[in-house]
Amino acid sequence: MSEGEKNRATVEIYGKTYTIVGPSSPEWIRDVAQLVDDKMREISQRHPHLDVVKIAVLSAVNLADENLRLKQELDELVKLIES
Amino acid sequence: MSEGEKNRATVEIYGKTYTIVGPSSPEWIRDVAQLVDDKMREISQRHPHLDVVKIAVLSAVNLADENLRLKQELDELVKLIES
Repeated sequence: MSEGEKNRATVEIYGKTYTIVGPSSPEWIRDVAQLVDDKMREISQRHPHLDVVKIAVLSAVNLADENLRLKQELDELVKLIES
Repeated sequence: MSEGEKNRATVEIYGKTYTIVGPSSPEWIRDVAQLVDDKMREISQRHPHLDVVKIAVLSAVNLADENLRLKQELDELVKLIES
């Protein structure tokens, strides 16, 4: 796929439909959406009293936390390779 | 900090207060919250018509996308080291 080409995928996340447009393949977009849907359901099961905004924000917090950890791991690995 | 020890940090994300409890340091939790807050504000600026649930879900989608990319990068780097 050429740089900048846009794909469109319609996905369902936590019962709502989203059309996501971006350079990634529709399969990739669906995997990403599945990851968010799983995370939201996991959090709502652990905290059944939370409203949907908080469930979504805490899912984002969870993913951001993993994100920073992965970046740290990647940095350490790059340093290891360079040393 | 010993394994399993819990920290508590009160953070503000997109105008709402969250108390986040976990094994990470309060500084780490604040960095994570800042990342989510930045992402939500960025998305709401790009799409001013979206409601807060969609802004939060799309922030999570954005972070999940980066997450999968980082995991892929990490896998490739590990393969490179092992080869």
